[in-house]
Amino acid sequence: MTAPGGTLGELGESAALARIFPRLPASSATLVGPGDDAAVLAAPDGRFVVTTDTMIHGPDFRLAWSSPHDLGWKAAATNLADVVAMGAVPTALVVAVAAPPSTDVALLEGLADGLRDACEALAPGCGVVGGDLSSSATLTIAVTAFGDLQGRAPVLRSGARAGDVVAVSGALDLAAAGLELLFTQAVDAAGAPSAELASVVRAAHPVEVDAQLAPTPPLADGVAAALAGATAMLDVSDGLAIDARRIATASGIRIDLDSAAVGSPLALTGGEAHALLATFPADVALPGGFRVIGRVEAGEGLSVDGRDFAERGGWDPYRDGDR
Amino acid sequence: MTAPGGTLGELGESAALARIFPRLPASSATLVGPGDDAAVLAAPDGRFVVTTDTMIHGPDFRLAWSSPHDLGWKAAATNLADVVAMGAVPTALVVAVAAPPSTDVALLEGLADGLRDACEALAPGCGVVGGDLSSSATLTIAVTAFGDLQGRAPVLRSGARAGDVVAVSGALDLAAAGLELLFTQAVDAAGAPSAELASVVRAAHPVEVDAQLAPTPPLADGVAAALAGATAMLDVSDGLAIDARRIATASGIRIDLDSAAVGSPLALTGGEAHALLATFPADVALPGGFRVIGRVEAGEGLSVDGRDFAERGGWDPYRDGDR
Repeated sequence: MTAPGGTLGELGESAALARIFPRLPASSATLVGPGDDAAVLAAPDGRFVVTTDTMIHGPDFRLAWSSPHDLGWKAAATNLADVVAMGAVPTALVVAVAAPPSTDVALLEGLADGLRDACEALAPGCGVVGGDLSSSATLTIAVTAFGDLQGRAPVLRSGARAGDVVAVSGALDLAAAGLELLFTQAVDAAGAPSAELASVVRAAHPVEVDAQLAPTPPLADGVAAALAGATAMLDVSDGLAIDARRIATASGIRIDLDSAAVGSPLALTGGEAHALLATFPADVALPGGFRVIGRVEAGEGLSVDGRDFAERGGWDPYRDGDR
Repeated sequence: MTAPGGTLGELGESAALARIFPRLPASSATLVGPGDDAAVLAAPDGRFVVTTDTMIHGPDFRLAWSSPHDLGWKAAATNLADVVAMGAVPTALVVAVAAPPSTDVALLEGLADGLRDACEALAPGCGVVGGDLSSSATLTIAVTAFGDLQGRAPVLRSGARAGDVVAVSGALDLAAAGLELLFTQAVDAAGAPSAELASVVRAAHPVEVDAQLAPTPPLADGVAAALAGATAMLDVSDGLAIDARRIATASGIRIDLDSAAVGSPLALTGGEAHALLATFPADVALPGGFRVIGRVEAGEGLSVDGRDFAERGGWDPYRDGDR
């Protein structure tokens, strides 16, 4: 028997939560799960990693382009990428959703399914241990994610040393290419996002559009990099140029990228790749999907093929929000 | 020299964050603080408590009534109340703020000051270890809070036993009275919230209005209750009636409240009190500000003066959002 639909306003908070809870993935770190004032989670080595990231209708996604399942998947995947970029194993998420009362509960069910499927596919054992459901004019998904360092030191942005190689795991340009396809081919004559056109574009370019709407960052390579001795690491969320510069600044070194290894100009400046960018001692056998794209030198800033690269690149939510 | 103002759109994300970071309180649990992909926090006993709660412009607050400092204070206080209701000591917060590009950075500075002052006043040693700044049409503040159980078992909702006393620490009706004052006396002829009228009301009724806009829950009484042997505890966020019923349901017992001890009808049904409601064995000397308001009996549900109390009471974000 299919449960009846209904809006959040018709169902009320308790009934809506009762529909969502059974669909959420369990975390193997849970000591006290949802339903009390707070959850209690295991932190076996006496520390935990925590990060938070929010997705907002308008600047961060369009319901015409993203299915509810996409939203849940992406909210999990992008936060988990930040956890693994510390060299940690993802353990749990808390998820705060704010939605208009007119929202159909089916949207939240799809979102829960996406969270579950992303956790199961990308970070088995990680689950949702708590959350919050609120009313807002703007659909908002705020995720906080946790990880376990398993006794290792966290891999920071500040540890790169001259002589290291710069390596990346994951695609650098697919998500940006997918966004470009959506902005050019999935809007109607008035410029508004079109669900119909988006499904045509997605069918024609599934790799690029999926990379944008339901990304699969190479999460296992985070721990693999830590075990292999990565000296610095981050999640490429704002574009390779801007994020490589962050490692350079934090580490007090210069990064020189090899344009041929990087690939397209879009790979250098496009956002939302969720690839892992790391530096390794030159004699390390690179783990997993990591490939060399540059090297660490004495100095400061970012260069490409030995020439200073000063373009900002990347994405600012307040300056690039309409695009 | 005063730093120049400006909107988030004019400043961009990095410059806005640079203005906010120095104002945030530090956490004594921080191992790796803001600025990397994730923070790393100490969890000395191998567990941590986590809760999340969101405040949204419109349903949860009005900028005409709440100052930015109020918003930061309340966002911290309400989340910390959920942490202490588990019997834990608050250790840290992560704060995700989403705001329109037209927002003046001074709003975020005031919000950061409120977070800091609330942590310093209510939970010394607790601080902000990370966050996220996004663009949204709707001002949204999503806080996730952490606590340390110091080796104790968490105090759940499910441990109340027949024969226990029911006790509360903190005011039950002030916040609801403050909201009533604002809704009746701080709106203009068209029903819109008025900043000018709100300041008149607040000056005339500071206790009630402060309890609503910048609450001071009795946070130290959470750990005190745990140490004294509380069998169940929660933060009264949705109204005493609804929250007492939650303990009754989770514990499989009946709660009978004494109307004379509870006080006004508003104390029974008004929301956002952030008082701590706990049950204790009858022979325990109640700690801190706890006072007896009822007792735990065999049975189910909630009664007042021995008569079934079936009113819903309390607040649902989807049904009561406009009020």
